[in-house]
Amino acid sequence: MSRLRVLSFAVSLDGYGAGPDQDLQHPLGVRGPELMEWFFATRAWRAMHGQEGGETGVDNGMAEKAFEGIGAWILGRNMFGPVRGPWPDESWKGWWGDEPPYHTPVFVLTHHPRAPLRMKGGTEFRFVTEGIHAALKQATEAAGGRDVRLGGGVSAVRQYLSAGLIDELHLAVRPVLLGAGEHLWRDLDLHALGYACEKVVAGERATHVFLRRKA
Amino acid sequence: MSRLRVLSFAVSLDGYGAGPDQDLQHPLGVRGPELMEWFFATRAWRAMHGQEGGETGVDNGMAEKAFEGIGAWILGRNMFGPVRGPWPDESWKGWWGDEPPYHTPVFVLTHHPRAPLRMKGGTEFRFVTEGIHAALKQATEAAGGRDVRLGGGVSAVRQYLSAGLIDELHLAVRPVLLGAGEHLWRDLDLHALGYACEKVVAGERATHVFLRRKA
Repeated sequence: MSRLRVLSFAVSLDGYGAGPDQDLQHPLGVRGPELMEWFFATRAWRAMHGQEGGETGVDNGMAEKAFEGIGAWILGRNMFGPVRGPWPDESWKGWWGDEPPYHTPVFVLTHHPRAPLRMKGGTEFRFVTEGIHAALKQATEAAGGRDVRLGGGVSAVRQYLSAGLIDELHLAVRPVLLGAGEHLWRDLDLHALGYACEKVVAGERATHVFLRRKA
Repeated sequence: MSRLRVLSFAVSLDGYGAGPDQDLQHPLGVRGPELMEWFFATRAWRAMHGQEGGETGVDNGMAEKAFEGIGAWILGRNMFGPVRGPWPDESWKGWWGDEPPYHTPVFVLTHHPRAPLRMKGGTEFRFVTEGIHAALKQATEAAGGRDVRLGGGVSAVRQYLSAGLIDELHLAVRPVLLGAGEHLWRDLDLHALGYACEKVVAGERATHVFLRRKA
């Protein structure tokens, strides 16, 4: 049975999944990159960007595992492209260059229809305008029995959490205080929504927390 | 120089320092005791209650250290006594029996004056009606150069955080989701208030996080 999973999703100690004032210069918000520092140091991240080296400890293991067994992705609109408005330009092909690191169909939640976009290495961006349930249905079909990974951003994760549709949520809790930005679970009662913490694993630059929806 | 420290303060993964619906039966709120389970298992806790045994790992080390070098305590009203109203009865001497585990002067924040209460083992409860600054001043004087520990509850910690008066905040983050209750830092921007995370230590039943106010 295909599961919907959020993996290696970075949040600050105070629960923010993105910093404030997101724009083209700050796609993760001001100080948002501090959330990702655990990932930037890993061999997994460097390999995704064609670089050698990188650390191979607990954090790297988490990052590598987060790409295993995934048959399709779902991304919120801002994860794929610039923050405001309809597609500024049909030539926009995401933040990742010609060969994005997904290597599967990727379903992008958006209000603006667009033709699918086939990239090098097996990634195909498909744009879903019918909402989160439709995107999950299409992604599950495309995944062919493997899992669906929801890559973010915060707003998309919140929508799927509210709907009780996420089976597993692996958070990389970073020891930083953002104080402002997009909060992952504010005003969501994760306990009432059926989630419980199953495991905590200390990494080098993040504490990995695994939440699961009780059956 | 005497510091104001919050030590071994338990919060849920989603930031709650107490559960909802606090009353005499549930002084920590519903499911609040789940926050304290890391502490209940330690040798430190058992020794405080005249019992032998208990675990002696990382969590225990944190709990023991939290009592070292402390010359005075500050407690919020609910930490000392039943939740509502003025002192229900002058015979109320706290939750801890004849010999509380403080062994120093303890300044209780309250709106209701009461004569000091001298207990066995060196604990003396003094009731401060002039607010958090007055309590800190009196506690600092009484501490004689040693540190002042703010024991809680959530409301008292929030007041001192908002005023930027806490030098060190050691949180024991428990892998539980309360979803409701008293949130420790909601609507407080800890970054803007000058706090940063200095250290994270994995314990057996809690992740210990150390926040410090930048000089």
